[in-house]
Amino acid sequence: MAYTDLNTPSRTIMTPGPVEADPRVLRAMSTPVIGQFDPQFLNIMNETMDLLRYVFQTKNKWAYPIDGTSRSGLEAVLCSTIEPGDKVLVPIFGRFGYLLAEIASRCNADVYTMEAEWGDVFDAEQLKAEIKKVNPKIVAVVHGETSTGRMQPLEELGKFCRENDVLLVVDAVATLGGVDFKTDDWHIDAVITGTQKNLAVPSGMAPITYNDRIEKILLERKKIERGLSETSVNSRRIQSNYFDLSQIQDYWTPDRLNHHTEATSMLYALREGLRVIQEETLEERFERHLVHGEALNKGLKAMGVELFGGEENRMPVVTVVKVPDGLDEAKLRATMLNQFGIEIAGAFGPLKGQVVRIGSMGYSCRKNNILRTLGALEATLTYHGAKVNQGDGVQAALEFYTNAKEPVTI
Amino acid sequence: MAYTDLNTPSRTIMTPGPVEADPRVLRAMSTPVIGQFDPQFLNIMNETMDLLRYVFQTKNKWAYPIDGTSRSGLEAVLCSTIEPGDKVLVPIFGRFGYLLAEIASRCNADVYTMEAEWGDVFDAEQLKAEIKKVNPKIVAVVHGETSTGRMQPLEELGKFCRENDVLLVVDAVATLGGVDFKTDDWHIDAVITGTQKNLAVPSGMAPITYNDRIEKILLERKKIERGLSETSVNSRRIQSNYFDLSQIQDYWTPDRLNHHTEATSMLYALREGLRVIQEETLEERFERHLVHGEALNKGLKAMGVELFGGEENRMPVVTVVKVPDGLDEAKLRATMLNQFGIEIAGAFGPLKGQVVRIGSMGYSCRKNNILRTLGALEATLTYHGAKVNQGDGVQAALEFYTNAKEPVTI
Repeated sequence: MAYTDLNTPSRTIMTPGPVEADPRVLRAMSTPVIGQFDPQFLNIMNETMDLLRYVFQTKNKWAYPIDGTSRSGLEAVLCSTIEPGDKVLVPIFGRFGYLLAEIASRCNADVYTMEAEWGDVFDAEQLKAEIKKVNPKIVAVVHGETSTGRMQPLEELGKFCRENDVLLVVDAVATLGGVDFKTDDWHIDAVITGTQKNLAVPSGMAPITYNDRIEKILLERKKIERGLSETSVNSRRIQSNYFDLSQIQDYWTPDRLNHHTEATSMLYALREGLRVIQEETLEERFERHLVHGEALNKGLKAMGVELFGGEENRMPVVTVVKVPDGLDEAKLRATMLNQFGIEIAGAFGPLKGQVVRIGSMGYSCRKNNILRTLGALEATLTYHGAKVNQGDGVQAALEFYTNAKEPVTI
Repeated sequence: MAYTDLNTPSRTIMTPGPVEADPRVLRAMSTPVIGQFDPQFLNIMNETMDLLRYVFQTKNKWAYPIDGTSRSGLEAVLCSTIEPGDKVLVPIFGRFGYLLAEIASRCNADVYTMEAEWGDVFDAEQLKAEIKKVNPKIVAVVHGETSTGRMQPLEELGKFCRENDVLLVVDAVATLGGVDFKTDDWHIDAVITGTQKNLAVPSGMAPITYNDRIEKILLERKKIERGLSETSVNSRRIQSNYFDLSQIQDYWTPDRLNHHTEATSMLYALREGLRVIQEETLEERFERHLVHGEALNKGLKAMGVELFGGEENRMPVVTVVKVPDGLDEAKLRATMLNQFGIEIAGAFGPLKGQVVRIGSMGYSCRKNNILRTLGALEATLTYHGAKVNQGDGVQAALEFYTNAKEPVTI
């Protein structure tokens, strides 16, 4: 059968990812391909590393993308650092904590978990006590849980891990580039993010950064593949070839040891997405995400719907809304998508059917998107029989924008 | 430091990959992102699966891309099918055979290798004898070795493996979409390819296909990750989460079990690249690659340079040229790139420094590219002091094109 030209519908994407890519990023991807060992391509690789250091707020030597979606970065870092039997502690407060535990267990780690109620996070003393008890090699934790809309504070945890010579690996897939994240100041040893959320780049790359504490392990485990070296052996070799950071990091040096063939167009996209952030500045960008998250929250409250979870550790970029009694959340989302062209998200696990999740990430995080979403949600809830305060949601957000200290134009 | 707009140089890419992406593919990538569970996106996924079946020449249910570069597909298939201690036989006739053996060994397979001289391939009797001796669960072999420019015939091997209940896994990264490859007729159980060669799509995805013999293993090893299922356990679970085909295939069914977030823009690119192939038809496309490979070969011979390897198992899409005595191949390539804007490739292992490799793949495989490359190579060799037959290379190719049964217009 013959297929037509791509003809995608016009959508406003207000999920926790993938969200709308910045139009500049989309244009960058149509740049012609050049060879992976072309000197000009090597420049592009170096520039991307430098831009990543800015966004990760780090002076680490290593900051580069893994060619795969977000979880490829998680697996690359975990399988390159975990050796069979290593103790790994995973504090879990939502779905993606389980994923870290799952990946660690597939690396044959001795996995310890601790769980918080969905909607909560851990307090520092709780974490410290568990670390003392377990004495893990690695603590792996999610920064922002899109499944619950909650953020785990990391500063005190990072300091404690460093003092106790524990490695701290953080999944910042949902936060980096939208929420303040200080890799070095918070003493985080390895960070993984994704492209399709606050970076406003399509899914398909997983930028990572790590320090010399991680690199030391990689170098101890290094085994160059047959085909490039006949003599390289190492009984501690990493279990994956594709995710072998000891080889991949060489690909990102002037030596350019051949590993994979770098994903050219995705690298163009990532570079452009990072350049947009550099131009906006991290400070302005974090402020923008805070302001629009706040506008959305004020609007929802004025509308009369209930929000899930407490204020204290709320992610500014994911807002979790309780579904009014008797309503089918799948039908709400279908009306939002099919009538208004606005995509919001459902939920996982214990929250499935109970809440919908609204993202305000990256390029999607704009005033017009927030206002449209509030308007459409009010109409959708009304259409499905819920009682909401007619007109109040959009007005509350509009007033908040208008009365902001600096007028919100974007 | 502030970075400028992407400003890549104009290049003619005549390597064995990554090669020039089709301009239609580049345009498709700038299509706006839509959500991974948007019904329209599900259509795009299904269409891509259907187009892949056409290019793989298969009726297999499963044909979809892994989100990563070519070797991610190799690892996904091997680590999902190999269990610790499984016997895997890898016939090696170039660099990428070593890669298959490397990946299999990292899956804790009991790896058996046999090696052919670089430039040769195996004859069927040799392979059959070794299979009888080893009695492996899996034979993993490269179809086209870009490192030597040679192709392993697979038809007889496939028949023998099927008769003896051995699984045959083939790396067709360098051949699929450029050279005839009959997954079903040749009885191949799993095939992996890449996007950045004959498919004329940027690097970053690895399309795979496999039959029900492979699927049976996947289902036996299936373990759904924590976070989606609390009860799923399986002592035979696959060692990677990212490459767990038993979960990924569910993502490609109407159930859409959440696994990764599909790489939207790369999927747009792949779909468009496949659609271009469907329009050209496989028959015409194979013929085009044969004709231009032949023109290149005739031109090089007329120029007076020596080709590496025999005629019999020559890949039409990679031509390996011996470097004339006393010349530095890196300097030849630098002149080609910096003076003519044409990229050709160096070599690996025993051939390093001895040969250069010229690709004629996908969108790069065009008459104007072949003629320019011949002209530039003649001038480059002359400039570096080699004796070549002035003018003869281009003329031989031009004559071949002009005298072809059907005039070659593209």
